[in-house]
Amino acid sequence: MDEIIELIRSFNKERDWGQYHTPKNLAMALVVEAGELVEHFQWLTPEQSQNLNGKTLRKVREEIGDVLLYLLNLADKLDLDPIEAARDKLAQNAEKYPVHKAKGKATKYTDL
Amino acid sequence: MDEIIELIRSFNKERDWGQYHTPKNLAMALVVEAGELVEHFQWLTPEQSQNLNGKTLRKVREEIGDVLLYLLNLADKLDLDPIEAARDKLAQNAEKYPVHKAKGKATKYTDL
Amino acid sequence: MDEIIELIRSFNKERDWGQYHTPKNLAMALVVEAGELVEHFQWLTPEQSQNLNGKTLRKVREEIGDVLLYLLNLADKLDLDPIEAARDKLAQNAEKYPVHKAKGKATKYTDL
Amino acid sequence: MDEIIELIRSFNKERDWGQYHTPKNLAMALVVEAGELVEHFQWLTPEQSQNLNGKTLRKVREEIGDVLLYLLNLADKLDLDPIEAARDKLAQNAEKYPVHKAKGKATKYTDL
Repeated sequence: MDEIIELIRSFNKERDWGQYHTPKNLAMALVVEAGELVEHFQWLTPEQSQNLNGKTLRKVREEIGDVLLYLLNLADKLDLDPIEAARDKLAQNAEKYPVHKAKGKATKYTDL
Repeated sequence: MDEIIELIRSFNKERDWGQYHTPKNLAMALVVEAGELVEHFQWLTPEQSQNLNGKTLRKVREEIGDVLLYLLNLADKLDLDPIEAARDKLAQNAEKYPVHKAKGKATKYTDL
Repeated sequence: MDEIIELIRSFNKERDWGQYHTPKNLAMALVVEAGELVEHFQWLTPEQSQNLNGKTLRKVREEIGDVLLYLLNLADKLDLDPIEAARDKLAQNAEKYPVHKAKGKATKYTDL
Repeated sequence: MDEIIELIRSFNKERDWGQYHTPKNLAMALVVEAGELVEHFQWLTPEQSQNLNGKTLRKVREEIGDVLLYLLNLADKLDLDPIEAARDKLAQNAEKYPVHKAKGKATKYTDL
């Protein structure tokens, strides 16, 4: 993890791209990449999305890489540890959705 | 990293939520969280986005946690290593944007 | 259509919000609202999404309203007619996906 | 407006694409197009976003067309009138943000 963050810093420094990388712009870039990720899934059935062919899987992998790169870049700019942020959020979710109430229910999310 | 993936698996298993977590649905959830992250930045000036107050920073940190949780969950379902995917994508970008051409240019991205 | 654009202009003018409404910020706000729209569908099966209950439908309707408000606001700022833009894009799509090739094929979009 | 909705229906019917167009999938397609719209703005300064060159403006116009096409398609599937939805949402916002409180304040949106 530390290694990839170091790589991102060098990559941007060499290209003098830090000037474009305000947190605002990085958040935008992240949602753009998330949209590209979603694109690969938009017309698939649930089953198809669980059985991607090799070509689609390679493209999805690239988009996952892109999303993570911008997420790490943004977290680095804000001096945040993303893994810790995820761990804390998961602990928060565990309180919000106790097992005995949330088990097997999509209704936690929705009121359909 | 392995630890947090393990925690995500347990969390979902205890709640029997795996049934909702097709790659398609997880990609949707990821873009939803990315949108919530963007929301905190939408009306800020570039400068304001670099000087978030404590309250906004805490919320942004939570959204970063959420995005990472769904990204790791999705990658796990597809049996992909997200860090490796990011490293490979960065190497690809390094070829696509050689330093002598890309240095200091936003035009790499856009034709404004 | 002209009437709603006029209403949006007055609404923003009365509140002096034009200062925040650069095309960049409005595009961000639009993707945020699009994410909120997606949120209502993320855990639904295809069938459930075709049979929304009254409560979800009302929320979805609000999000559709929000997306359209920002889309019209953005198009207005850029002095574009969104209906004409949609009509031109549809004509472009008709050339790109001729009936005899595209009929009944999701492969137009994807290579699964 | 009625005319463009009629055109969308014919376009999809001729290609037998209705089968892919569940509300869930259309919402996904909409956020994907919204992401493509945002992409054109991600590295621009606020000022640059207000002075797009001809090429970028043409691309942005196409994306606005795409977003509207999917929004109208989705609303049509749900039997909703998007203009009415927008008008109702604007009336709701007028109550939520009374002029005397909201005037000139970004704080309506954020707590920066």
